[in-house]
Amino acid sequence: MATIRLWTDDMVAGDPRVKAVFDDIRSIRNSDFVNNFWRALANQPALLERTWGSVKEVMIAPGKLDPLTKELIYIAVSTANGCSYCVHSHTAAARAKGLSDEQHAELVAIIGMAGETNAMATAFQIPIDPEFEVG
Amino acid sequence: MATIRLWTDDMVAGDPRVKAVFDDIRSIRNSDFVNNFWRALANQPALLERTWGSVKEVMIAPGKLDPLTKELIYIAVSTANGCSYCVHSHTAAARAKGLSDEQHAELVAIIGMAGETNAMATAFQIPIDPEFEVG
Amino acid sequence: MATIRLWTDDMVAGDPRVKAVFDDIRSIRNSDFVNNFWRALANQPALLERTWGSVKEVMIAPGKLDPLTKELIYIAVSTANGCSYCVHSHTAAARAKGLSDEQHAELVAIIGMAGETNAMATAFQIPIDPEFEVG
Amino acid sequence: MATIRLWTDDMVAGDPRVKAVFDDIRSIRNSDFVNNFWRALANQPALLERTWGSVKEVMIAPGKLDPLTKELIYIAVSTANGCSYCVHSHTAAARAKGLSDEQHAELVAIIGMAGETNAMATAFQIPIDPEFEVG
Amino acid sequence: MATIRLWTDDMVAGDPRVKAVFDDIRSIRNSDFVNNFWRALANQPALLERTWGSVKEVMIAPGKLDPLTKELIYIAVSTANGCSYCVHSHTAAARAKGLSDEQHAELVAIIGMAGETNAMATAFQIPIDPEFEVG
Amino acid sequence: MATIRLWTDDMVAGDPRVKAVFDDIRSIRNSDFVNNFWRALANQPALLERTWGSVKEVMIAPGKLDPLTKELIYIAVSTANGCSYCVHSHTAAARAKGLSDEQHAELVAIIGMAGETNAMATAFQIPIDPEFEVG
Repeated sequence: MATIRLWTDDMVAGDPRVKAVFDDIRSIRNSDFVNNFWRALANQPALLERTWGSVKEVMIAPGKLDPLTKELIYIAVSTANGCSYCVHSHTAAARAKGLSDEQHAELVAIIGMAGETNAMATAFQIPIDPEFEVG
Repeated sequence: MATIRLWTDDMVAGDPRVKAVFDDIRSIRNSDFVNNFWRALANQPALLERTWGSVKEVMIAPGKLDPLTKELIYIAVSTANGCSYCVHSHTAAARAKGLSDEQHAELVAIIGMAGETNAMATAFQIPIDPEFEVG
Repeated sequence: MATIRLWTDDMVAGDPRVKAVFDDIRSIRNSDFVNNFWRALANQPALLERTWGSVKEVMIAPGKLDPLTKELIYIAVSTANGCSYCVHSHTAAARAKGLSDEQHAELVAIIGMAGETNAMATAFQIPIDPEFEVG
Repeated sequence: MATIRLWTDDMVAGDPRVKAVFDDIRSIRNSDFVNNFWRALANQPALLERTWGSVKEVMIAPGKLDPLTKELIYIAVSTANGCSYCVHSHTAAARAKGLSDEQHAELVAIIGMAGETNAMATAFQIPIDPEFEVG
Repeated sequence: MATIRLWTDDMVAGDPRVKAVFDDIRSIRNSDFVNNFWRALANQPALLERTWGSVKEVMIAPGKLDPLTKELIYIAVSTANGCSYCVHSHTAAARAKGLSDEQHAELVAIIGMAGETNAMATAFQIPIDPEFEVG
Repeated sequence: MATIRLWTDDMVAGDPRVKAVFDDIRSIRNSDFVNNFWRALANQPALLERTWGSVKEVMIAPGKLDPLTKELIYIAVSTANGCSYCVHSHTAAARAKGLSDEQHAELVAIIGMAGETNAMATAFQIPIDPEFEVG
């Protein structure tokens, strides 16, 4: 199903560099489950380390946006990019962080409406109002 | 700059159906400024009415997500869709609803990271973990 | 404004291979105006020839879809791809082939609605009904 | 296979608001088959009602574009957006409205060519000819 | 699984025009395997001939870019477009042309980073530096 | 033209953290010119540092792909994503690394053809050949 090999736990156990990242994922998420995304990246330890490092910095470290809001943004981008895997994994993550059915429906309604008005703005090639400029 | 004529206030004043929508926009937003998106849709009153009706229902009516969060989702989709007009107009809307510089930077970091991991998941064609399925 | 030089008529006149394509464009379209797309491709005669050949075969040669319908499909794809140049040039082409304001508004409404329901289908990761399969 | 539960006919029968929409879909389409898209939206009656209302207005109500042309535009957008579900469902709908194999092949050729020239125009960042401006 | 019928070798054998293209594919690739893309295009001989002709000209004829580099570019576009089939087929093609695991990981890292910085540039709507203009 | 303020050299000089990154960019590129992308990121030092760190690791550190090939991949993704800024900046970077006019034309031809066949594969929803699977 993939263009790359997915690492099993046995393979992970045999590579200290990969094992260190998997241990950190399990520890920070407080769960033994490690999803396929990381099992694919395991083929290239440098890419695995850099990506997990960025995810921790952007998605997990405390910031000015709450964790659930961050997941909604992730789902929105993943949907617009048509990434099935990402929509699935981040919708599951959002549910784990408290996303209710009503909120999910609202999220999808907003994503849909943005998709509609984006298309209209592009089809009409509407010029940007000067009031919206900053830089 | 556009593929369609943008309606001036004088043109709007001469068409009761369009004027009714513009009056409602100004009243609900409590501002005299009406941005170019609506001036483009004014060419087709039925499209204008339906679109403004949906925007009111999805973005303005009280729901389970707060108004700023809704704008962040809109910006995320608009960015992924590459819609310049939409990124500009909804970033301005988000600032008007309290988006701080730090939150804006976090938003862009999340959008960027989602763009990166979306691409990786697609390039590796990672199979969806059964744990993420619902339906 | 471009990443490549745009050929002027003087430059075209000096290159027989490019001139032959420009002459054909002017003859088939029955107009002296040649838009920037072809002036960009002129930098690479082989690319220019192959692309114009394909355009003639797909868009101009008589087929089972009428010329205006073909332009509507082109606009729809160009909008979804966010290609400003293409939206502009094919909307102009569609108007030249008889696209009315009402039809333009309907076209944009359909493109917008497709953008909305596409996003919903992707966000919900809806499984394909067996009734829709062919091959 | 989804990020949301799909409603069976038994579930639909137990919710009068959802049932009313499903009855209308069956009546207008003159078929007992209701595809998964609507079974997913059924989780949120307000979203279901608004979306079906828009579909009726844009795709089903008589307009200036014929029903088959509307479906071709829908397929074009869905293809450019990479929405598998939408490509499947609207290709089936187009066939039901008379799309022949030759027309399908022409449609795909146009979508493909638009994808090619869109990419070229974007790669060369071709400036928009003043002749194409309207607004 | 498709919206169109896939031609078996028996069907191909019965249509001289399709058979000629399949023979050429097998001869040029020096392999009996013909992938599903061509079996789908076989439904429309004109589309099949034109597309295979273009692929030979762009991807197979000697040029200024080496064959492996061409495949990397193809994978990059296919990933950004979210085309599962294309990512799979061109990753396989790249491996057949010598793509190593390390190079594959680097390719995906670059595609991912481009996806990230593309999103940032779009979210910030960064104006193009005059130094980058050519035409 | 932007949704964010672009930092001038004077502003940079007054913020040690931003100045350190700008100094590193100038030193590694051996040029005083710093393009707008970095002047936009300067608003958020943490985002600036992480992004420049990743660019150095992925694009500048020696790897298994040569520097020009990396830029071609970047241009391909940026084109498919419709990111004007990125197409401009990375085409300029590729020229600085030796991209010839012929290679540029070939690159665009490949990007265009990938855009065309991606669209065809998606429109036909072609099932992935088992021969292409890895993981």
